[in-house]
Amino acid sequence: MAAEIVNPRSDSRTDQEGGAEPLESFDPAFALHRGGKMAVQATVPVRDKDDLSLAYTPGVAKVCTAIAEQPELVHDYTWKSSVVAVVTDGTAVLGLGDIGPEASLPVMEGKAILFKQFGGVDAVPIALACTDVDEIVETVVRLAPSFGGVNLEDISAPRCFEIERRLQERLDIPIFHDDQHGTAVVTLAALRNAARLTGRTLADLRAVISGAGAAGVAIAKMLVEAGIGDVAVADRKGVVSADREDLTSVKRDLAGFTNKAGLSGSLEAALAGADVFIGVSGGTVPEEAVASMAEGAFVFAMANPNPEVHPEVAHKYAAVVATGRSDFPNQINNVLAFPGIFAGALQVRASRITEGMKIAAAEALAGVVGDALAADYVIPSPFDERVAPAVTAAVAAAARAEGVARR
Amino acid sequence: MAAEIVNPRSDSRTDQEGGAEPLESFDPAFALHRGGKMAVQATVPVRDKDDLSLAYTPGVAKVCTAIAEQPELVHDYTWKSSVVAVVTDGTAVLGLGDIGPEASLPVMEGKAILFKQFGGVDAVPIALACTDVDEIVETVVRLAPSFGGVNLEDISAPRCFEIERRLQERLDIPIFHDDQHGTAVVTLAALRNAARLTGRTLADLRAVISGAGAAGVAIAKMLVEAGIGDVAVADRKGVVSADREDLTSVKRDLAGFTNKAGLSGSLEAALAGADVFIGVSGGTVPEEAVASMAEGAFVFAMANPNPEVHPEVAHKYAAVVATGRSDFPNQINNVLAFPGIFAGALQVRASRITEGMKIAAAEALAGVVGDALAADYVIPSPFDERVAPAVTAAVAAAARAEGVARR
Repeated sequence: MAAEIVNPRSDSRTDQEGGAEPLESFDPAFALHRGGKMAVQATVPVRDKDDLSLAYTPGVAKVCTAIAEQPELVHDYTWKSSVVAVVTDGTAVLGLGDIGPEASLPVMEGKAILFKQFGGVDAVPIALACTDVDEIVETVVRLAPSFGGVNLEDISAPRCFEIERRLQERLDIPIFHDDQHGTAVVTLAALRNAARLTGRTLADLRAVISGAGAAGVAIAKMLVEAGIGDVAVADRKGVVSADREDLTSVKRDLAGFTNKAGLSGSLEAALAGADVFIGVSGGTVPEEAVASMAEGAFVFAMANPNPEVHPEVAHKYAAVVATGRSDFPNQINNVLAFPGIFAGALQVRASRITEGMKIAAAEALAGVVGDALAADYVIPSPFDERVAPAVTAAVAAAARAEGVARR
Repeated sequence: MAAEIVNPRSDSRTDQEGGAEPLESFDPAFALHRGGKMAVQATVPVRDKDDLSLAYTPGVAKVCTAIAEQPELVHDYTWKSSVVAVVTDGTAVLGLGDIGPEASLPVMEGKAILFKQFGGVDAVPIALACTDVDEIVETVVRLAPSFGGVNLEDISAPRCFEIERRLQERLDIPIFHDDQHGTAVVTLAALRNAARLTGRTLADLRAVISGAGAAGVAIAKMLVEAGIGDVAVADRKGVVSADREDLTSVKRDLAGFTNKAGLSGSLEAALAGADVFIGVSGGTVPEEAVASMAEGAFVFAMANPNPEVHPEVAHKYAAVVATGRSDFPNQINNVLAFPGIFAGALQVRASRITEGMKIAAAEALAGVVGDALAADYVIPSPFDERVAPAVTAAVAAAARAEGVARR
């Protein structure tokens, strides 16, 4: 984390065409983005001939030769094990949808600087000019020698599932689709603390998830893995259940391991008597449906910028309310998870990120709240400096325990 | 290219978990390389909620939307126009040959930090796990949205020629194979100054190049473009001439625009009466052949670590001697060219790097020497701070003059 940050480009081009920049005159976000948000820096001196002869030729040749003979030395003597590729195809960027690779770059740069700021992990935006699954997979496989891990970002469902799965099969470095697993880890952490606050366990809870995209599917998997009592997932057509004939293969799988209660029909109907609502859909849930939930319910309405249930409404019926917004308490924000997850995985050179590592991350994240647990504090702030070290340590330990650590 | 290459197998990393690093105990190059030589940094603050809401969601969404609507804004509001991909497949790394992508990374990181240090250009090492020409071309095309330019590096001939040509056809950002053009630019600069020192012009000179790989071919092209009297290129089988039947297509082309004198036979024979020797081969030239050159000859023996002609021998016969080594005067070092060439091209968002831009770079580089011109000073030091600004300005101006600048 840089104590002093300069942006040498921010002031250099304002009057270059002889005039002001209209976009910047009405919005500070444009001024901040001028020239981009990141840079590369040397971490070794290159001041004179002697420096150059160590960092470049001839000194560098010995290091290359050593790696050629002992490939694992690449982790010791290059930045490979510090750097993650943030890979997108620009098809599902924020709530903006398929805006293409170039237009996605501001988000990818943002992600990269969050990696650095919160996890000390170097990250490079890689926005690809292809959307075909085979092409994305092949491209990332070819890039892999240069990177210690791959964070997949803002790739639309259901392609994101297949891309991640195939890359995990092909490569022995962590492949992590943050829109799925980052969201799931933080949601699980908040849910654990909400249960603790109200004297329950996950096994006591029946949850309903609105949204069967990347986040919804991953949250469902993770809640089942963590021992939730029951969870049903609803898409636009209602609860995903085995009797539906319109399911994609991903949703058919989902129907197989969720919805033990055998619900069908609308999201609203499923909410009657439910203990937990998890919104990752962007829709709106009517107040009557929220009112029909069980006593002491949890409402995690994470759509941005408009939560599926407004917190003021949710508070009328729910014991714990969380959103995706920074201006309400209990923000479910992926930045609580991905920097520490990658930092931990890279630290021990994990070959992959397992379910156990993700659950360990969620538990560590929940643990940061500790005795300060309260209805408006089930999840720490993104700026809580205890978060990343706790997640990093837990993930590294879990990787060792699960046998995927290589040091 | 290392004068002495250690055998890293001679020590096992048996006590790696115990603390001491054997490789580092006997060589400072390993100590310097531990953890790599570069990092990413944020250039905007991410200290609190307000910072995050500008640099990431929700503020970033406006910037993404603006780029989606006006694609050229990607150059203004991301780091695209500041960042170059340093792309290799690891097939021709220094003098080490085909050592693979991972083992090439220390060189690519070195290149990246030289870009930053000397040109203020951000650069990212991309070492690819493929060597097929089609695959490399496709991969770089898919990566291109994220980068303002591509520096091809250490890709073996003749594939490097086709890869560069096809990428130039497919993409509208600068594609530059430094092993070819960087070397050619610096060589031309030194040659111009050597000619000026001895009261001659390029048209007065007959040159012989030893080596018909990436550097040799590019130097020959550039000398012809710049108006050399004549230039012949020799490979291991002798002078490349139209009557040879063993020529690759690249060498057939070469035979078409070089060797006006119609020489054939050995390199040594071609040197008799020649004005310039340019060595980019790694072989050795016998002293008798050097002695047979014309009065006031120039010997640029650029092989590393062992020049084709040792400078002490060359000085017996030549008016100007240059090498690729930092421990002799007149070092022909690519770092004199590529940082400024890319900085200039990126500054004006050039769609490509033209012959005119390269010649402008060579002239600017030669011009830095100015009135201090002497036999042991025909080319500036890599650490001369005037070099990169001069090259940058000349390249930017040439791009405008040639109509490839987009701002």
